[in-house]
Amino acid sequence: MPNSDPSSSAPAFLHTDAAAVTAFFERLDQQWPGAPAKLVEAMQYSLLAGGKRLRPAMVLETCRACGGDAFSASALAAAGAMELIHTFSLVHDDLPAMDDDDLRRGRPTNHKVFGEAMAILAGDAMVTTAFELLATQAAPNDAPRLVAELARAAGAGGMIGGQVIDIESESVALTLDQLRTLHAMKTGALLVASCRMGAICAAASDSALAAVTAYASHVGLAFQIVDDLLDITATPQQLGKATNKDARRGKNTFPSLLGVEASRAAAEKELAAALESVGFLGDAANGLRELARFVVKRSS
Amino acid sequence: MPNSDPSSSAPAFLHTDAAAVTAFFERLDQQWPGAPAKLVEAMQYSLLAGGKRLRPAMVLETCRACGGDAFSASALAAAGAMELIHTFSLVHDDLPAMDDDDLRRGRPTNHKVFGEAMAILAGDAMVTTAFELLATQAAPNDAPRLVAELARAAGAGGMIGGQVIDIESESVALTLDQLRTLHAMKTGALLVASCRMGAICAAASDSALAAVTAYASHVGLAFQIVDDLLDITATPQQLGKATNKDARRGKNTFPSLLGVEASRAAAEKELAAALESVGFLGDAANGLRELARFVVKRSS
Repeated sequence: MPNSDPSSSAPAFLHTDAAAVTAFFERLDQQWPGAPAKLVEAMQYSLLAGGKRLRPAMVLETCRACGGDAFSASALAAAGAMELIHTFSLVHDDLPAMDDDDLRRGRPTNHKVFGEAMAILAGDAMVTTAFELLATQAAPNDAPRLVAELARAAGAGGMIGGQVIDIESESVALTLDQLRTLHAMKTGALLVASCRMGAICAAASDSALAAVTAYASHVGLAFQIVDDLLDITATPQQLGKATNKDARRGKNTFPSLLGVEASRAAAEKELAAALESVGFLGDAANGLRELARFVVKRSS
Repeated sequence: MPNSDPSSSAPAFLHTDAAAVTAFFERLDQQWPGAPAKLVEAMQYSLLAGGKRLRPAMVLETCRACGGDAFSASALAAAGAMELIHTFSLVHDDLPAMDDDDLRRGRPTNHKVFGEAMAILAGDAMVTTAFELLATQAAPNDAPRLVAELARAAGAGGMIGGQVIDIESESVALTLDQLRTLHAMKTGALLVASCRMGAICAAASDSALAAVTAYASHVGLAFQIVDDLLDITATPQQLGKATNKDARRGKNTFPSLLGVEASRAAAEKELAAALESVGFLGDAANGLRELARFVVKRSS
């Protein structure tokens, strides 16, 4: 499990922020009396596989940046719900009918261990768990907005829609603008929702909400550019999954459209724009700055 | 499409209750700017396939029975969200990795028309849409409870968990108690949530909430017994899907455990118990009474 703890370049708070979310996932078997043990095991297999917990950290650091309490019930529920939706998307995207991946986070993918039916159902149950968590743990005043943000970001106009466009555009040449739109949906929407949910938990002002939304859009794009770069420059051991997949599948990537050097420059430009977006939040946004740098500098 | 409108024995209000839900599904393409047209088409294919809309009717009739306004924003959102979750479960259950069904509501199943990847993603997007609808359309005071009810009923301790147990117990002999538990999760949980959500929208008293919960448990069990019976006594034309599937798959059913006559008697007993549960609600519960009778007497 190469990513079982964040790499040495990861901000220290990534450990702390991840701990609360991980603790909730470890107690998942106590959540529902009568739930089949195998289903909960399949859910925990992927939820406890040692991801970077980047999205929960985005929720909690944004909450801090906006002056909120990152250990409030709303913020912790939002962080957990976000990781549940992210992990669900990985489990379903890995399925044979989709990307047909055998390896994820250094271990066999969910359907390789539990079978396709269970992987589909475990992913489904992660989605309902995400919304159950928000509805039962977040402050009632925050819950409707948090549910709305997460549902829209994950849905047909966001992440799931982005996955559809990604599948439809394999072996079809996209323009740079189309590629940006694809990633704004597939990856960006969830990162934007992470920051917006953190801001909502902090009862942020409209201007702070707009600032972290812009920040997250830039970080999201940078994240995807770096992801594309790592697919061609990193080893499978570093990433915990197969590499060079994009070229094999005829996927449009930033390096394939721009070349490696210009892609690196584009990622740096997005990083600079992200940092600028949260400039006026002062020192409170230092966590967000570290996170943005980590996203661009990471090697896995 | 044999079920494109409810059969002649269906209560008249099933038409009326279905209309609002259907209208929302017909406008789904206006819901998200940027959502891929094919994904929305795949969602609408199954959402507009002419189901009985039994669960939305349960929501709205329970709301009426508890003295609420069935045309309130909360009640209509709850009805639509419930049908979205129900339809998602059909689309995923029909997948090759699960029940591998070719026919549903008289038409090819979703994956037969749109492919497996799209069917998985269309189902996923129905789930997020259900929670988006509750969070954005229901009254903010009702939304957290409605989301919590729906998420728990659909999740690992409810419908999805029931589907796992169903798959695990193929070709395994269950006791009658185990069969009841399976169906309480797989079918019952969503019917119970339908009634509880309707009651929540009506700001029902604790005793009314308990009464409709009991009503729905009995109706849910009766529903499943009748489903099992129809699988062996009805024609594929009547049901709009293949019949005699249970025996072929070695599934445990009420007729296989009890025989046909005792199963019919058991369904009647559940009907009587359902009617008794809502006795004290008086004439306001007449819609619920009609629904319960329809569930037991239906021929499709």
